[in-house]
Amino acid sequence: MKYQEFFENAVSSLKTEKRYRIFADLERQAGKFPRAIWRADNGLEREILVWCSNDYLGMGQHPDVIAAMSDTAQKMGAGAGGTRNISGTNRPLVELEMELADLHHKEAALAFTSGFVSNEAAISTIAKLLPDCLILSDQLNHASMIAGVKSSGVSKQVFRHNDVEHLEELLAAAGKERAKLIVFESVYSMDGDIAPIEKICDLADKYNAMTYIDEVHAVGMYGPRGAGIAEREGLMDRIDVIEGTLAKAFGTLGGYITGNSAIIDSVRSYAPGFIFTTAMPPSIAAAARTSVQHLKNSQSERDGQQRQAAQTKKILSGAGLPVMPSETHIVPVFVGDPDLCKKASDMLLEMHGIYIQPINYPTVPRGTERLRITPTPFHDDHLVDGLCNALQDVWERLDLPKIEPGSFYDLKCLEEQQVFNAAGG
Amino acid sequence: MKYQEFFENAVSSLKTEKRYRIFADLERQAGKFPRAIWRADNGLEREILVWCSNDYLGMGQHPDVIAAMSDTAQKMGAGAGGTRNISGTNRPLVELEMELADLHHKEAALAFTSGFVSNEAAISTIAKLLPDCLILSDQLNHASMIAGVKSSGVSKQVFRHNDVEHLEELLAAAGKERAKLIVFESVYSMDGDIAPIEKICDLADKYNAMTYIDEVHAVGMYGPRGAGIAEREGLMDRIDVIEGTLAKAFGTLGGYITGNSAIIDSVRSYAPGFIFTTAMPPSIAAAARTSVQHLKNSQSERDGQQRQAAQTKKILSGAGLPVMPSETHIVPVFVGDPDLCKKASDMLLEMHGIYIQPINYPTVPRGTERLRITPTPFHDDHLVDGLCNALQDVWERLDLPKIEPGSFYDLKCLEEQQVFNAAGG
Ligand SMILES: Cc1ncc(COP(=O)(O)O)c(C=O)c1O
Ligand SMILES: Cc1ncc(COP(=O)(O)O)c(C=O)c1O
Repeated sequence: MKYQEFFENAVSSLKTEKRYRIFADLERQAGKFPRAIWRADNGLEREILVWCSNDYLGMGQHPDVIAAMSDTAQKMGAGAGGTRNISGTNRPLVELEMELADLHHKEAALAFTSGFVSNEAAISTIAKLLPDCLILSDQLNHASMIAGVKSSGVSKQVFRHNDVEHLEELLAAAGKERAKLIVFESVYSMDGDIAPIEKICDLADKYNAMTYIDEVHAVGMYGPRGAGIAEREGLMDRIDVIEGTLAKAFGTLGGYITGNSAIIDSVRSYAPGFIFTTAMPPSIAAAARTSVQHLKNSQSERDGQQRQAAQTKKILSGAGLPVMPSETHIVPVFVGDPDLCKKASDMLLEMHGIYIQPINYPTVPRGTERLRITPTPFHDDHLVDGLCNALQDVWERLDLPKIEPGSFYDLKCLEEQQVFNAAGG
Repeated sequence: MKYQEFFENAVSSLKTEKRYRIFADLERQAGKFPRAIWRADNGLEREILVWCSNDYLGMGQHPDVIAAMSDTAQKMGAGAGGTRNISGTNRPLVELEMELADLHHKEAALAFTSGFVSNEAAISTIAKLLPDCLILSDQLNHASMIAGVKSSGVSKQVFRHNDVEHLEELLAAAGKERAKLIVFESVYSMDGDIAPIEKICDLADKYNAMTYIDEVHAVGMYGPRGAGIAEREGLMDRIDVIEGTLAKAFGTLGGYITGNSAIIDSVRSYAPGFIFTTAMPPSIAAAARTSVQHLKNSQSERDGQQRQAAQTKKILSGAGLPVMPSETHIVPVFVGDPDLCKKASDMLLEMHGIYIQPINYPTVPRGTERLRITPTPFHDDHLVDGLCNALQDVWERLDLPKIEPGSFYDLKCLEEQQVFNAAGG
């Protein structure tokens, strides 16, 4: 048994497949977003424009959020000093949980150090506590939800992406008496489409199922107080568990679930991924809470983001670039090949100072590789024009296909070849 | 199917078993550690002494660590803004990883947002990449390692705690040709005992197995540069993967693994728990790195901790309190009943202003419930005396058994009734 070889081969096979990932080494600069310093392999540093951040509203550089983090660190120190149960529960964290419960109009909330862990811990614990539970999982659910489903050990069925008819078939087959948990996202982050939440809730009522929604790519950004798509559509009270992150539109770190007291207390009491790990530091909790509070009361970031996302779609599609249809702030541009996707990204960075990470398998299905663009309120019209020019230049150099100006890329032809992949279901 | 009932019952059964957990709501105060503000259920606030923090060296309140966190937040903002691959890799995080590789004299390191996630992601990924891997896991391994073992899906065998003969039997039975991964801890945090690392490495050589050690309760605190027990014993180069946390002796948040480049690159490239989650914020990375650097060069915190831990053991055991034998800085005092353990803890807090969380199942096996005391350099002799008086008072009020003064509690009588439990193996 030559251990070393297996690891070397694991890495080199990614290189062969052209999906070996190189992380861009960035230095963010508070107050200058979306500008950042990029440090190339040769050590040279250069100012670039970030067009793929999930700090969707730029809250990570909001003066109040930074002040909350910095002041709380000064006052309470750098870490929590223990797990939640053993000396780690701190006042700002308790206050954050109350804020989040209020945000979603739920009885209780529980914070985790990431959205990934909140999904994994909550889904697995909830499913395990129910007798003979069946999980119904959307085909394109995020890896963290899949991890939760797997770790629950209960049986699952995958329904075709956003396909309520397929979901109904599976629910009907399982019967009303069996425990059923429907897990899905509101905004799917790689395509920018939205789940038919109301219809899913109707089915859950009809067949007596529980509902669990991941609003990671919606919280802060949709609904009058930034509680997500379910808030915008008046559906929060029809969903049993709403999960979100503090690390995207809220600009900080951590994840959470909200729901009624019994469910939240059960996860709090039974989930190893919640119990056996150090609590979130007070400084992070305070920063996150400040951000949540701010976005509860301020609409301007949401408006700015929607306006600039619409502008980006309009300008890029007007230039014949293959923008994929999206109902949200996410602007995916189709490439369809891992090597070309990486090359396009490298060219944008090196020749135009524009950073857009290539999105390859396993984040998206093979053959649907893309550049995923996330305009924020800070990407003004001038920057959008610059982006469009740069993309056109790269498209020309790499001889990438364009589509009819003003139209959107039609994924239909691809759908047939889509299979259930690593990131899906 | 009445969902609500299952969650209500899950919670109420914990209450019946007297192991329902109530988190103490604390406000740490930088510069005053181990003093903190405790907020009771009725909202009243009171200054108390924390005797169960895992901020083992008080680094969470070190001025340089706090300054690094606060300055970096001011300069670079509150969050990373993306996953490692998609815009989230930041300069302080890259520097932290280099620092950690250097600390353990390994080629590379990888940081995670928690030690829990580092164990889960690394163990599962490494085991999955090896053909037909067998994991050999210490009976008392931490929940995060068990999560990694489970999520790998490979077969595992549990060896009796720190029992190298049992381990050898299992290795021999598996044969030299089969891929084998031995996972164990250096310091077991609930008992304070230490693994026979050298013997385990000898066996790994003899039977051609890989070794994975969790040094979570040792990093910062042992070895001339604070790299852990393996450093102290000159064994770092004999261990394939060394895992640690940044949230205990280093006083901040996050976890990490170190090893040779191929292994680290494999985990980086294949572990969903690493790939699909937002990166650590620059401010946390900078604070953690400052702490690691400081403890590489400063011995005084380690000396102070060892001195006060020894003093605590001496004084408590001198008073006939049932201190359990421990080779490390951890001072467990035996209670053996969940209800009494909670009552003792409540009395200490309410009557003496001393906070020591009761440690009940599933953190320790049933029947071994205890108070786990963690003296730091900041718990001076005067505080140790106060602790001893308070414990004696509580022991009397609750009529808890004492032992011969100067001796240590003998766990042997209990060992037979120990079964493999939730937290074990
Ligand atoms: C849909 C979805 N859920 C959960 C997560 C995990 O959240 P976090 O980054 O806070 O771990 C992500 C991305 O990171 C995501 O895209
Ligand atoms: C042995 C051991 N490993 C790992 C962890 C997890 O580390 P972290 O708190 O950084 O998640 C803990 C405790 O929390 C632990 O006791």
